[in-house]
Amino acid sequence: MLAKALLPELWTEILVPVCAVVGIVFSLFQWYVVSCVKLTADRSDSEDGKNGHGDYLIEEEEGVNDQSVVAKCAEIQTAISQGATSFLFTEYKYVGVFMVFFAAIIFLFLGSVEGFSTKSQPCTYDKSKTCKPALATAVFSTISFVLGAVTSVLSGFLGMKIATYANARTTLEARRGVGKAFIVAFRSGAVMGFLLAANGLLVLYITINLFKIYYGDDWEGLFESITGYGLGGSSMALFGRVGGGIYTKAADVGADLVGKVERNIPEDDPRNPAVIADNVGDNVGDIAGMGSDLFGSYAESSCAALVVASISSFGINHDFTAMLFPLLISSMGILVCLITTLFATDISEIKAVKEIEPALKNQLIISTVIMTVGIALVSWIGLPSSFTIFNFGTQKVVKNWELFLCVAVGLWAGLIIGFVTEYYTSNAYSPVQDVADSCRTGAATNVIFGLALGYKSVIIPIFAIAVSIFVSFSFAAMYGVAVAALGMLSTIATGLAIDAYGPISDNAGGIAEMAGMSHRIRERTDALDAAGNTTAAIGKGFAIGSAALVSLALFGAFVSRAGIQTVDVLTPKVVIGLLVGAMLPYWFSAMTMKSVGSAALKMVEEVRRQFNTIPGLMEGTAKPDYATCVKISTDASIKEMIPPGCLVMLTPLIVGFFFGVETLSGVLAGSLISGVQIAISASNTGGAWDNAKKYIEAGASEHARSLGPKGSEPHKAAVIGDTIGDPLKDTSGPSLNILIKLMAVESLVFAPFFATHGGFLFRIFS
Amino acid sequence: MLAKALLPELWTEILVPVCAVVGIVFSLFQWYVVSCVKLTADRSDSEDGKNGHGDYLIEEEEGVNDQSVVAKCAEIQTAISQGATSFLFTEYKYVGVFMVFFAAIIFLFLGSVEGFSTKSQPCTYDKSKTCKPALATAVFSTISFVLGAVTSVLSGFLGMKIATYANARTTLEARRGVGKAFIVAFRSGAVMGFLLAANGLLVLYITINLFKIYYGDDWEGLFESITGYGLGGSSMALFGRVGGGIYTKAADVGADLVGKVERNIPEDDPRNPAVIADNVGDNVGDIAGMGSDLFGSYAESSCAALVVASISSFGINHDFTAMLFPLLISSMGILVCLITTLFATDISEIKAVKEIEPALKNQLIISTVIMTVGIALVSWIGLPSSFTIFNFGTQKVVKNWELFLCVAVGLWAGLIIGFVTEYYTSNAYSPVQDVADSCRTGAATNVIFGLALGYKSVIIPIFAIAVSIFVSFSFAAMYGVAVAALGMLSTIATGLAIDAYGPISDNAGGIAEMAGMSHRIRERTDALDAAGNTTAAIGKGFAIGSAALVSLALFGAFVSRAGIQTVDVLTPKVVIGLLVGAMLPYWFSAMTMKSVGSAALKMVEEVRRQFNTIPGLMEGTAKPDYATCVKISTDASIKEMIPPGCLVMLTPLIVGFFFGVETLSGVLAGSLISGVQIAISASNTGGAWDNAKKYIEAGASEHARSLGPKGSEPHKAAVIGDTIGDPLKDTSGPSLNILIKLMAVESLVFAPFFATHGGFLFRIFS
Repeated sequence: MLAKALLPELWTEILVPVCAVVGIVFSLFQWYVVSCVKLTADRSDSEDGKNGHGDYLIEEEEGVNDQSVVAKCAEIQTAISQGATSFLFTEYKYVGVFMVFFAAIIFLFLGSVEGFSTKSQPCTYDKSKTCKPALATAVFSTISFVLGAVTSVLSGFLGMKIATYANARTTLEARRGVGKAFIVAFRSGAVMGFLLAANGLLVLYITINLFKIYYGDDWEGLFESITGYGLGGSSMALFGRVGGGIYTKAADVGADLVGKVERNIPEDDPRNPAVIADNVGDNVGDIAGMGSDLFGSYAESSCAALVVASISSFGINHDFTAMLFPLLISSMGILVCLITTLFATDISEIKAVKEIEPALKNQLIISTVIMTVGIALVSWIGLPSSFTIFNFGTQKVVKNWELFLCVAVGLWAGLIIGFVTEYYTSNAYSPVQDVADSCRTGAATNVIFGLALGYKSVIIPIFAIAVSIFVSFSFAAMYGVAVAALGMLSTIATGLAIDAYGPISDNAGGIAEMAGMSHRIRERTDALDAAGNTTAAIGKGFAIGSAALVSLALFGAFVSRAGIQTVDVLTPKVVIGLLVGAMLPYWFSAMTMKSVGSAALKMVEEVRRQFNTIPGLMEGTAKPDYATCVKISTDASIKEMIPPGCLVMLTPLIVGFFFGVETLSGVLAGSLISGVQIAISASNTGGAWDNAKKYIEAGASEHARSLGPKGSEPHKAAVIGDTIGDPLKDTSGPSLNILIKLMAVESLVFAPFFATHGGFLFRIFS
Repeated sequence: MLAKALLPELWTEILVPVCAVVGIVFSLFQWYVVSCVKLTADRSDSEDGKNGHGDYLIEEEEGVNDQSVVAKCAEIQTAISQGATSFLFTEYKYVGVFMVFFAAIIFLFLGSVEGFSTKSQPCTYDKSKTCKPALATAVFSTISFVLGAVTSVLSGFLGMKIATYANARTTLEARRGVGKAFIVAFRSGAVMGFLLAANGLLVLYITINLFKIYYGDDWEGLFESITGYGLGGSSMALFGRVGGGIYTKAADVGADLVGKVERNIPEDDPRNPAVIADNVGDNVGDIAGMGSDLFGSYAESSCAALVVASISSFGINHDFTAMLFPLLISSMGILVCLITTLFATDISEIKAVKEIEPALKNQLIISTVIMTVGIALVSWIGLPSSFTIFNFGTQKVVKNWELFLCVAVGLWAGLIIGFVTEYYTSNAYSPVQDVADSCRTGAATNVIFGLALGYKSVIIPIFAIAVSIFVSFSFAAMYGVAVAALGMLSTIATGLAIDAYGPISDNAGGIAEMAGMSHRIRERTDALDAAGNTTAAIGKGFAIGSAALVSLALFGAFVSRAGIQTVDVLTPKVVIGLLVGAMLPYWFSAMTMKSVGSAALKMVEEVRRQFNTIPGLMEGTAKPDYATCVKISTDASIKEMIPPGCLVMLTPLIVGFFFGVETLSGVLAGSLISGVQIAISASNTGGAWDNAKKYIEAGASEHARSLGPKGSEPHKAAVIGDTIGDPLKDTSGPSLNILIKLMAVESLVFAPFFATHGGFLFRIFS
């Protein structure tokens, strides 16, 4: 019998929910601070704002009619918020149908494993013990699936709400200085980050404790059914990421193609009928979509770690503290991110535009450094000094410091990926400047150099992921990989805050333009937005890096549960699985890119129609019909996400049922190792094109000015690159995270079914 | 003791060389027929040409000064031929240095396995027998490496010679009708195809028989050293494909960027200084490069099959006929292709432009159908009815009809890949027409739709490859996969003839333009060229399909030789290998795309310089300095191919030596399954863009005319797509074949070394 963790079980039971509640309270406090920026024309309220500074710099000297501007901002914000809400509610209708349908499938498939018998059965891994019936697993998996889905929906919805609540406030604060605007945008991002991290943790914690009442000492069954939570979170991410991604880029590309190219009006011009849809898209795609994606990763990596732990010494010895190690890491993460946030909002202050990007980067560095200490602490008190981890049929002895290294290597790999992404997508460095320079010889060279940049940007992140996998896998098998993923995601609250900050600033700029505010305001919001572009790329880097680790961990858990001893490349079933699996990201990307194209074309037609039929629209005397564009984007994105969604959801079921678990494990591994590369290169290529365009537009250096100004031939070439990059970086690239994670977690949940009924085709032929 | 093959050994010893000689004679005969088209101004010779038709249609009515046109064609041809020769000789200097250096490495590494001992040793697979010393393997591997390299160089050089010999002749024959021109171009392609197939077979056959004098009954050692032949062939393909690919696209993109975009002069205009370099590029890239690539595949798949056969019952029982089954397949292939060629040159006749593409497609269908019968015959007489095949440590019993299915499935998979490629890249079908249509909304949508098309075009070929792998692997393990690859390559003579036909027609068009011939001639050569674009894409499909099978077979042979029992994805060493291996194609593509970009920029500068400094150049009164452009392309391509070349050549050595054979096998599998997808999508995307542009230019339908004419906005967008596609389809895409094959064959050759000295890093840490 091995020793137990230092931290008593009771303390664990208290600490985890307390940290979650602290996170929620902190998030509500941030919301309160943001809400102190008033969107009514009553000036006196705004003047005693709670930001703690008395010396605000109101832009009165330009003689803007403040009253009408504020009212206009509020009006635009309402339109955006309503558009986003309308999209999400339409989406939820389909989500609801899907959830009921898929919950039924889970129940039926898993229930059928033992023919819906209510009798207890020998455990899967330890046949000498008796476990709860397969029917119980079916019921509880279904329940945790629904819980995961609801939590994900809730997090995405709240994130979108706060984002659309904060965008106009950021615009208004920009009148008082770039620092004030930054803080509003960042605080709003933090609301989203903390709410999501804390909610995810709390719901998971409560679910485990409630399920435990039924399962008692059968932890194997308990944590097997908990995996439904990851599946639920991840399937909602499919809607959020893919549907939201199609929405945002259909609106963006559609608005640009008619507005910028045909009508020659600037971005975010209120005369463009698609402009509200475009701003809505930023919220549903980059906020709600990104949030549900990272929530999915978080839920899945926790579930993967828990399911492996349940059949390791933690589970066998019923060491609850050690069992909840993944949740302890996340709890610590919330506290660390809380401290980190204070550095941005209270300790330092932004005075100039050039301080924005370093401030955001410092957030990453500070959180990583403090978190390393936090992980050490948790590993010390939350784990026995020595324990065993299930390693594909055997038990491997692991020391607590080895597990510390597993988590830490994931955490630091995330930071490296973040920095490499920044290097390749920020226009402060040579790669993007080279791409901008290649615009001299036209759009073709811009595209060639941009694609090459994306391909090249894959190298270091892949090595970083490979090193984390090697270290964590060698030390603690698949449990190590799962906690490495958790390590990368442990600072998720800060990561999401930085990430959500981007679209909020983007919207703020849009609102400033639409409200007809001074170009000085617009310059400030543009500066916020440029930094946001880079942080968005960093966020995507984190998302794909963690997705790779999570998928591998889920893959490992699936393989264990399906009773496979080796996944040997030297067998025909596995090798064709690998080959076809590696093809799936291409198929999926082709679908999502085409979806954006088709949806954008519909938008183009509607925008053209409005310009042609509404008299006075171009002159600014008549208002466009924003609502129709919002509706077109909504309907098109929902419709267009069905084929890629089916590809993701059906592939594991079809392969598992007809070709069996060996082929399915090949497919999972193939899509993982191929998808991660495409996802990284697509999102970095897109980010680089976007910032190459911004580099030329900003004209901040001699070199940049030689390429500009707006409307020059190189700038036109850069705009083409940017438009191509839009679906790559915001739809097809990030959607691949969902592809690889969702297929893996779905396979894990259905593993008992495949192990019993899978491989139909091979069985009838042999 | 199993039965032997029906065909007596003596007959095999006679049949194989006879078929090879028949191929060579047939090839020389085609050359003779082509040479009957005289390039001198003496008309009477041309009139009694040997094409067997008396009713030629000379375009006298346009009153062209025939004498001067013929002289001009001859002059341009000489310039192209000299340019190509000069490039190849420069390349060969580096090839020579590389060969000496790498031969030394092979000798030293393999010799060191047993410490350069000259004593006989126990065999690797059957320890009870005595085999020749490792030093002998080192010596003979080095020799066969040199032989493979020399054969490849020779085939590429001769192919280039005949191509540059035939291009002006095709132009001149176009005056007599499109059918005449077609036959000249096709015959010239056939010279290349048959020469390469027959040479490869003959040299391999002779080498085996010579080595046998030393090795005697030690077939294990004999065929292990024969693998050097594959390595030699494949390393030359590195120079041919990568160097040639960079050359051709640097010249093409460079010529287009200044000529078409800046100076607004048509393609192939003699005033453009890069025009000769561009035409040279077609020969060194698409002819010599493609030839060496396919020769490499052919040599490698033969070697992979032979090395596995030597440790199966064929080798153990010393059944020489069955042992030479791969060579018998190739011998049969030469005969089948010979008959097939007659269908194009003698049996049917092309009278109209629209008959060209069907004629070429029929070649593929006819050769596949006849070859299926041929394979059945060879499998019946060349194999025992039952035998055993080495299957990773065990011997698997296989029937001769099962092996027939293995070869046939590869052959037919090739045909399917060819047709799918045609569907996605020919402008007769909706995919390319949709891409052309997307040019309405600009270059950005064109690029998005083109990329999506490429991704989508991967699906069916991957399923075709997966099915061939599954069938052949299930029936006859890695031997099955190797002969499936041979099946796909068995019609290589026809495939190469079709493929080489493309660049010859392309050149013919260029010569017509430069010689200032009537636009009616140009229309005919353009029609030949358009069909050639599609067949080039088909050829690339074959090349990558066979490369995938070949690499897998080599991988299997490597794994066997390195003494690995399983390549388990569930081990850290393998999984990081897979991940990093899947990244290599991206790294490699980034390098090759950047190389094209840099080399093209150098070309742009030179072309600009000439336009700016040579007075009267734009007016056509002064001649440009073609030679400098040829030299720039030559030097740049040689220089730029060093980094990607090093990546390919050093990766297996570094990974094998430092990380060991398990990680290396992961790297090989990863790069295979990821590289094949990128290669297919890149070459189809590029082909589709090229033909979308041609579709708009030709304006053959109502829809096409609505997008045109030349110079319209949609056409400009299409030109941008075409320029982006150039490096994708002709450099980075096809070069990936080399990456995956070369790494695999290199690993196989060095397997004895890695098995003894590999995994240095893990050994010092454990």
